[in-house]
Formats: sequence, structure tokens, C-alpha cells
Amino acid sequence: MKKISIYDTTLRDGTQADEINLSSPDKIRIALKLDELGVDYIEGGWPGSNKTDRAFFAEIKKHQLNHSKIAAFGSTHAAKNNAENDKNLNMLIDAAPDVVTLFGKTWDLHVREALRVPLERNLELIHDSLAYLRPKFSEIFYDAEHFFDGYKANRDYALATLKKAHEAGADVLVLCDTNGGTMPQEISDIIADLKKELGDARFGIHTHNDSEMAVANSIQAVLQGAEQIQGTINGYGERCGNANLCSIIPNLELKFDGQYQCLPEGKLQQLTTISNFVSETCNLRPFLRQPYVGRSAFAHKGGVHVSAVMRNALTYEHIVPEGVGNHQRILLSDLSGRSNILFMAKKYGYDLDKNDSAVLDLLTEIKERESIGYEYSSAEASFELMFFRAMGWSKQYFKLMNFSVMDAMRKNGEAFIEATVRLKVGGKIEHTAASGMGQVNSLDQALRKALYPFYPCLKEMRLDDFKVRVLSGTTRDTGGTASNVRVLIESADKDSRWTTVGVSYDVIHASWEALVDSVNYKLFKDDPKKWPSKAD
Amino acid sequence: MKKISIYDTTLRDGTQADEINLSSPDKIRIALKLDELGVDYIEGGWPGSNKTDRAFFAEIKKHQLNHSKIAAFGSTHAAKNNAENDKNLNMLIDAAPDVVTLFGKTWDLHVREALRVPLERNLELIHDSLAYLRPKFSEIFYDAEHFFDGYKANRDYALATLKKAHEAGADVLVLCDTNGGTMPQEISDIIADLKKELGDARFGIHTHNDSEMAVANSIQAVLQGAEQIQGTINGYGERCGNANLCSIIPNLELKFDGQYQCLPEGKLQQLTTISNFVSETCNLRPFLRQPYVGRSAFAHKGGVHVSAVMRNALTYEHIVPEGVGNHQRILLSDLSGRSNILFMAKKYGYDLDKNDSAVLDLLTEIKERESIGYEYSSAEASFELMFFRAMGWSKQYFKLMNFSVMDAMRKNGEAFIEATVRLKVGGKIEHTAASGMGQVNSLDQALRKALYPFYPCLKEMRLDDFKVRVLSGTTRDTGGTASNVRVLIESADKDSRWTTVGVSYDVIHASWEALVDSVNYKLFKDDPKKWPSKAD
Repeated sequence: MKKISIYDTTLRDGTQADEINLSSPDKIRIALKLDELGVDYIEGGWPGSNKTDRAFFAEIKKHQLNHSKIAAFGSTHAAKNNAENDKNLNMLIDAAPDVVTLFGKTWDLHVREALRVPLERNLELIHDSLAYLRPKFSEIFYDAEHFFDGYKANRDYALATLKKAHEAGADVLVLCDTNGGTMPQEISDIIADLKKELGDARFGIHTHNDSEMAVANSIQAVLQGAEQIQGTINGYGERCGNANLCSIIPNLELKFDGQYQCLPEGKLQQLTTISNFVSETCNLRPFLRQPYVGRSAFAHKGGVHVSAVMRNALTYEHIVPEGVGNHQRILLSDLSGRSNILFMAKKYGYDLDKNDSAVLDLLTEIKERESIGYEYSSAEASFELMFFRAMGWSKQYFKLMNFSVMDAMRKNGEAFIEATVRLKVGGKIEHTAASGMGQVNSLDQALRKALYPFYPCLKEMRLDDFKVRVLSGTTRDTGGTASNVRVLIESADKDSRWTTVGVSYDVIHASWEALVDSVNYKLFKDDPKKWPSKAD
Repeated sequence: MKKISIYDTTLRDGTQADEINLSSPDKIRIALKLDELGVDYIEGGWPGSNKTDRAFFAEIKKHQLNHSKIAAFGSTHAAKNNAENDKNLNMLIDAAPDVVTLFGKTWDLHVREALRVPLERNLELIHDSLAYLRPKFSEIFYDAEHFFDGYKANRDYALATLKKAHEAGADVLVLCDTNGGTMPQEISDIIADLKKELGDARFGIHTHNDSEMAVANSIQAVLQGAEQIQGTINGYGERCGNANLCSIIPNLELKFDGQYQCLPEGKLQQLTTISNFVSETCNLRPFLRQPYVGRSAFAHKGGVHVSAVMRNALTYEHIVPEGVGNHQRILLSDLSGRSNILFMAKKYGYDLDKNDSAVLDLLTEIKERESIGYEYSSAEASFELMFFRAMGWSKQYFKLMNFSVMDAMRKNGEAFIEATVRLKVGGKIEHTAASGMGQVNSLDQALRKALYPFYPCLKEMRLDDFKVRVLSGTTRDTGGTASNVRVLIESADKDSRWTTVGVSYDVIHASWEALVDSVNYKLFKDDPKKWPSKAD
């Protein structure tokens, strides 16, 4: 079994992504999670480029890491300096990481157009920078920027840069497909050639996904002998992103007959959790279709597939989802036919016949609702309420009479928001008002105020997430602001989490519907008398 | 130059994706676009499985296609029938497509667990189904479901199924990696073996992306001689999706020295447009980081990268973006340093020095605003207004005094929404009210009502899209409904489109801010007197 080093650059190259901006505390939180996962190296940033990154290196020292080494990134010294008096190199030393990764230019075009120095001078920059840092660190990696493009443009010069880095003592020569345009066959051919020229060097690979080949290229390099893979969680990174470690790691560990090991034993099961943690911390919506760790990665919708998967999951799943910390999902949809509903019914304890009229009615209702924008695959609690109503459950915990929200900006620029709710519980009318942070929060507070006296268990419940999705793109007549809106509300108590849905052309009415479902679900779930026992 | 057939299955396998449900008119609109792009085959659906798909085949006949052939999908006949009396096969005939694609079982596990018939019987199903359809269609393709898994589990049986399909007259044997778990090296080895056994057969490839290898695997198959690629626009499809045609096509056309042709001459430039069209029609948010066609595919954020790209785009772009109908974007962000702002300034006609105090002030303002949730990379119109204000532009087209929105549900369940706006134009106070579809639309209408008398040009402007994003996940104290909200509004007139941004804890206040920016931008853009001419 061969150990492949995992070098995570989520905190440096990952933050180059459109939409990603991480604060220094965010970076620390992610680093601690990466250490827990057991990646070998965590690249924390480029101390020479900004304060946030410098703060990271100072702060991370206060934490005890179990597995990962901290790497700092920087460039070869500026052409106008020598290594010893270069600010960027000295900031790397000041940051005092475990490892330094230095990048240099490989492609003659870049030496001319970006560095604007003679080709020979660039070789000196590479050599002198590495030679200066070498005695100060136990490990130094050299990132050969644009290696593959450089090789294709001027093979001899590209090789000369690598040889310089090798001579100057870099431990690993990391071959970068910086622009992401290289095909796997080229990766193979070029590394094969390289091994002839630099037989005793150790190689790493750093790819970008501009041709949707970053994962394939990384694995191709490993097959050619590369020992280190640089990538990011979820493939975050500039343009189309970096090589996605969440796919590379399970591919190497699960698809090559145990030839490769990337993470410490037993850590692969944390992959889905860390993927979600990083997307949440970056404040990005997780990519549903993401291989291995995505919410849809083991989701089955087609009726035929669902019935096969129910018999044997292997029929439509390439691995056991729990192996990467994910799980199977059965989607409710008009394409799915009755088998999905039967599957859910079973989960709720009902063994129904596929020709049962309740099943057919429910299918019709789902189709109608989906056609106007409801979506039950993520809002299972709303589905469950609908299912039990179809089974004859008819209890009403409260009866809404009316609500209102007023949202205004006053002359002095101050906001004023107020919600009122009027409802009946048993025979009693409750009429409440509340002012919260925003309209939905105000409505939520007014609703709770009305219900607490009757249902104190609602105090344990909290709203954890609130998602708004505008459904149709354009309504020309009235402007896009008249589009339909779907609201998903995620709620939680000490035992469980549930999601409910509401749809309307108006965000408040959609939110209200999801809010009421959420409260009803909590009351339903905790209600010992919701249903006469089946023995009755 | 070798022609590779492109077989699009967005309308069939694509619709198996989580979150995708297409109506029959949607399917027709997408088919017409695919024909415009020039794919060779459009798989419209599975007539035996549902009404929507049957309606598609009836409807598409009313349209004149220029390039594409229409394919219908179906399975081998049911084991209890013979081919002639099988409903599914006869529905394929009734649908009368140009081409039929029949799928059958390759993997012995599936024959036993899903079909539940003896292995020998499955060979008969394959043969008899194809032999029955063969004389009725000029082209028939055979999709060997789970081919690679089947080959690995029981090579001889997998080959026997293919040989049966070949004997029965299938024109192309399409090798499916249905579960998406196969590595490129296996694709290569298995097809090489296959060619020895079935030397005179023509092969196609159909892959899924569960290992993030669907694009690499498709291309690997082409390198081994496959002539047809089955995939979907944007890689939509079940679980992690199908092979992404938006990456495969440009990879083959641009990365192999002109060896392969997929689309008619000059059509590749339509790729970004069709990708966006399909995601809009499917009502899915486009994937920013999507290779070639994504909004971020040629977006540059890092200050170093931006300055290099400004000198020579080749330094950080693997192809010319316009070749696939995309374009370069420079992102505004706290990581980007001053060079991005200088780049935008240049675009607006200002040649600023990087130490100009206006540049530094603007950078500080952007950073502050981004830290509370503003995002200018997509809201360039809001940035432009901010930029010109920093340059000394101070005109105020109107002065807002106050607004209010009331949103209520009455006792009878009816919604009542009303917005009021009070503002001053010149010395005159306008106080208006309107009731529209939803709160933002009502506010928009009240605002326009107040401004039309002074600025009739606003009548040409419309709001085209409205996006809401809840920014921070959780605020435990008050429930998730108190999170911050970012609203992006896209507006258009006859000449141009622009996007503005607003941020608040309250969706209405955020919408109002974006709305006011949008109107201001329209007035600014059309105003000949906004600025004393530079010669003054």
C-alpha cells in the first residue's frame, strides 16, 4: 500500500474562488477540521500578500494539531532584490510554518510577460530563493506554476526550471496545471518524459478544473508516480476551481484495490461532514450533485431505480454511501411512480398496497403541488404531515384567523416592523403582536407568543435555517418581482431536525405556510394522542 | 478529422436529476435549442414510461428540425411477453421517432435481482426486442446498462449480451457506466479487450459522474475508438449527473489538435448560451464554477492574476472565452487589491493612479460593505454608481422620505398587500400607493407611479430577475429567520441589462435598496447632463 500525501490548499487557492471570502477565525475553524480529517498538509495562506493570512499563522500556533503540518505559500524573490533582502521570503520565515511551498515560473511566456525578466534571471530567482530558505525549514516544496503549458511551449526551459529547484534542495517538485487546460493523456506522457530527466526527484501534482479534468489528471499523475496531491475541499478555487479532494481521496482509497492510502485509517467516513462544514463556513450553498459527498450523490428518483435499490443498493450505487459519511435518499417526485410513496409509507410504519386509493390520491396531490412549485424531496416534514392527513389524521392544534405584517421605513431612515397574529386554540381566541428582526422573525415571534400558553413544548424548538428561492425567472408584464417564491424552513429541537415548505407569489405568505407546517410538525411529533393506537 | 456523434439525453436521463421536472412545452423549447446547437441526436424521453414523454414525440413532429434526429428510449421487452405483444416496444413504434435506443441488462446481478429471470432468458429479451424493432427504424442503438460493472463481475456474460445485440442488428453498442464508479484506466482496458471480441462493431459511451470521472471516461472511450457520446447539457442527471456535454464537446474540439469534430462548423460559440438556456428552463441556478460555460470560468480575482491577464489573457486562460460564447470577468473583492479597481476605472474611462486617494477610499468602502454581505462581482451597476460617487458625482434624482408595506392574510384566507412611497423630486412631494403581486412588486409599482411624471424613460425599464440569498446560517437566539439577506435585482431596457444589490436583515429593506439603485442606474445611464464634460 502506497501512502499519497494530501496537501490541502482550501485556505489559500480555495479562497481565490468567486464568492469566497474567509475571515481569519473562519480559516482557523477550517484548519482544525482538516486536521481532524487527517490531511498531511494545510496551506494556510500567503503571508507576503495580506494581513488576514499573516494573522492565521500567528493564531494557528496556539492550537495543538494532531496530524497536519502547516504550510505557508510564497513566490520566488523579486527580481530587483536578492533572496536575503526580499520582503516576501522573509515574511515566510517570520510566519514560521512547518513547511514552505514556494512557487516559481516555468513557462517562458510568463517569465517574459508577467515577471518581465530574462529567462536566465528566472532560473537564478528559483535557485537563490530555495537555497536561502532550505536550511531554515525541514521541508520545502516547489510549485512549478504552469508546468504543463510551459513544457508544451518550451520543454527545455521548463525542465531547466525544475532542475534548478531540484538542485537547490526542494523536497517535492509539484507540477501545476495552473490554467487547467491539460488533458490526462498529456499528464501521463509529460510525467513519463520527466522521470527520464529527473529520475531521483519526488513529484506532486496541482491541477485546476477548467476542462473538468482536475480529478482525472491528479489520479493520472499518481499512476505515474506522483506522491503528493494538492487540492481543495469541494474543489473550491479560482475560475472553475482546484482539484476536488472530496473526489480524489475516495477514488484513490476505494477504486484501486487498496493500493493507495490518503487519510489515516477510519477517517474517510468524515468526508461528507467536512465537505458540508466547509461550504457552510464559506457561506456557499452545497453543490447537490457533488460526487460522493453531495446531497444527491445517492439519491434515487426513477421508479424503476427505486424498486431495484430497495432490493439491493448495489444495483445503482457504486459504493456504500456510509463509507464516505453520506446516506441514501429516495426522492419524491412525479417521475418516481408509486414505489417511492410505498417506500416512505413503510418508513412511517404503513405497509400499503400500490393500488390503495390513498396512495393514488397522494400521488395526485403531490403532482399538483409540484407543478406550482412545491418540492418535497428536501421538505420531508411537510410530506409527512400530508401523508398522515391522507391516512385520515385530522387533528388541528390551532386555527389561524388572520395575520398581518407591516414593514416601513420612517422619515429618519429607521425601520419599523410589526407582525400580528390572531388564532383560536380550543375555544379561545389569542391575538398577539411582536416586533422582531425582519418580517418572518416577527411573525414567528407573534405566533409563538400566541401558542406558548397551550403548547409549552414549542419553547424547545428553534428555526435554524430559512431559504428563499424565486421560482420562475421572468414575468414580463409586471417585472421579475412578481415571480413565485418557495420558502424552506429548517427547524430543530433537542432530538431532531425537520424541513417544511411553503409556496406563494409572496415571500411572506410562503414563509407563513412553512412556519405553520413546522410548528404543526413539532406538535404532531410530540403528541402521544395524535392517533388512536393501531390495536384500537 | 473524425466526426464524433453527440447524443443528448438531457430530456430523458437529465430529468432524472434531483430538482428537475420539465413540462412537455419546456422539453420542446430545449429540443429546438439543441437542434440549433447541432447535436446529432436528441433523446426525447421514454414513451413507455409516462404521458409527458409521449406528448413530446407527438408535438416535436410539428417542428422542422435542421440537424438533429429524434431518439426514443425504451427497455427490452418484459419477460412475461414476447416482443410483438410487448406494450413498451409497441409504444416506441407508435412514438415514431427517427431513432430508437433500447437498453438491456449486462450485469448478471441485475438480471437476477432486478429482472429476476434466468441469465439465458435475458439474452433472448435483448435479441428478440432488437430483431422486432430492427426493420421498423433506419437506426437502432443498444444501451448496455451497467456494462463496465457487468464486465468486471462476469466478463463472459457481459460479452454475450453485447454479441446478442450486435447479431440482432444494433447499429451502435453503447457502453454504459450506469453507476458512475469506473476509472478511466478501466474504460481503456475494457474497451481494448472488447475490440478483440467484437472487431466489426461500432461503440458509443454513456457515463455518469459519481466518481467525478464522467468527462474523462467519455474522452478515454473516444481515444479507444468510440464514435458516439451520450451526455447532457450541464451534466444534469440522476445522482451526480451524466457526462457533461458542455465540457466534452469543447475538450474534443479544442484540445486534440483538430482531430475531432462534434458540432457543425461555427456552433461551438453557442455553448454558453445553450447552457444558460437549459439551466433557466430547468429553473436551476447555473453552476458558477462550471468549466467553459460557467460565469466564473474566466473570472479573475487575485490581484497578481488580474494584472497579468490585463497584459495577456493567455497567462491565466486556457482558451479564448469567446470561442465557447463566454467572456472574461474581473471580480471585485478584498483579495484583489487595487489593480481590479483600476481595471474597472479604465472601463469607465478613467486612467487613475493606484495611489489616488479616491481609489484607496473606494477600496476601503468595498471592504466594509463586503464584510456585511454586499457582493459587487455580480452587481456591477451598484458598483458603478459607487465608483462615480467616489469620483465626485453627487446628483440626486429623487429623495426618499418614507415607504411602507403591509402584507396581511384576512379572515377569509385572502391576501391583502399594499405599498406606499413618499418622496421628493425637485421641490415636489409625491405620495403614492399600489397593490401588486407580492411586496416587492407592490413597492416597485408605487415607486414608479411616483417617478413616471418626472422621468418617463423609466417606462422602458423592467425588472427581469429577483434573487434572494440568506447570508448567515443560524442566529440561535432568535431563530434562523433573523439572518441577514442579500437581494440582487436584474433590470433591463431595450439596450442593456444591469444588476444591483441590497443587504439588510429584512428582505424588504434589502429589496428596496436594490430597487432604488436600479432606478438610479437607469436615470444615470440615460442622463446626458449627469456630468460636466471632461473638456469643461
